[in-house]
Amino acid sequence: MDFFDVATTQRAIRRLKADPIPDATLRQIMDAAICAPSGGNRQGWSFLVVRDAAKRKRLGELYREAWGELMKVPYYAGASQAPPDSPAGKMLASARHLGEHMGEAPVLILACIALDPGVKPTITTGASIYPAVQNIMLAARALGIGSCITTIHKFRDAQVKELLGIPADVETAALIPLGYPLGKFGRPPRRPLPEVAFADRWGQALAG
Amino acid sequence: MDFFDVATTQRAIRRLKADPIPDATLRQIMDAAICAPSGGNRQGWSFLVVRDAAKRKRLGELYREAWGELMKVPYYAGASQAPPDSPAGKMLASARHLGEHMGEAPVLILACIALDPGVKPTITTGASIYPAVQNIMLAARALGIGSCITTIHKFRDAQVKELLGIPADVETAALIPLGYPLGKFGRPPRRPLPEVAFADRWGQALAG
Repeated sequence: MDFFDVATTQRAIRRLKADPIPDATLRQIMDAAICAPSGGNRQGWSFLVVRDAAKRKRLGELYREAWGELMKVPYYAGASQAPPDSPAGKMLASARHLGEHMGEAPVLILACIALDPGVKPTITTGASIYPAVQNIMLAARALGIGSCITTIHKFRDAQVKELLGIPADVETAALIPLGYPLGKFGRPPRRPLPEVAFADRWGQALAG
Repeated sequence: MDFFDVATTQRAIRRLKADPIPDATLRQIMDAAICAPSGGNRQGWSFLVVRDAAKRKRLGELYREAWGELMKVPYYAGASQAPPDSPAGKMLASARHLGEHMGEAPVLILACIALDPGVKPTITTGASIYPAVQNIMLAARALGIGSCITTIHKFRDAQVKELLGIPADVETAALIPLGYPLGKFGRPPRRPLPEVAFADRWGQALAG
């Protein structure tokens, strides 16, 4: 597929079929992942590719609990009052579906990043793992596989790390379900470019 | 270009020509950027696209100072002892070149993310901005434009924010130079997949 066709139609697909993903397809996705950049090319990343049914089921349970925690956060509690037909309401319904069915996706990938001893993660720690996560989602979309990026497993981080044997000095960054889509790919709903792209100084819309 | 050809040959290009980038090309890159996901589709991102010569020059000066700060960090100070012909030595020479010439790239993009009032950024804050940064770099590569992700402007964050008029509650996440490459695209040097992709539990190499 053409790059721009992939990049402009990669939307969050949260309703996924349970059909398995062929090994060769998964390897192609992961090969794209590791071509992403990381700070100083240190490649401190690790990707736990979970296909084992019992482990997925347990991750699904933990994710369901995490979803419950998220709904207590004021912003999301407010969003849950959105009309079901509104964009926010539809997204919430889709996210709620994932909250209940995460464990049924045929592949769950936990993207992790090693921390230097004694150093706490910051926003820029993410610069060494989220580009690879984006490559996973783009490569999946190029191969007709749906995905989305989630981070709320952090509400149950200790349990997730214990389940998968992740060392203490490794930070979990994202949980990404992969599966053939029940919904359709397509351009995602976004704010217009002039609202978010500025020319030379804050607030001055990029001409276009 | 085919998606996988783009994703597997997008390497850090730190030596860039000063030739300008056409407006339409830049808009196509930025359109790919905003198709990336963000948490809850909140799109709290802003992208400062700097082409003004005086602002680029000043950003280049600040980046040079930041490079000097980075070289005091033990890991990088150690890396600077690597033989010039080794992979680490070559990367350092390339990064040093960028340290001295950042301001000469025809376009500098500062990727930013809004913070909730009173909330400090964490690693997962990055999940809402670095996927868009990766889309910028992939789209640039698809159009024959070199780029790389840098974060060391944070050593001079206050000055960068003042120069561009960035509000206090907005976090800068990455500074990305764009320009036609002096070097070549190609598969980046990476650890083999079985070292970093695990099946079902930590340390168990993904069969491949």
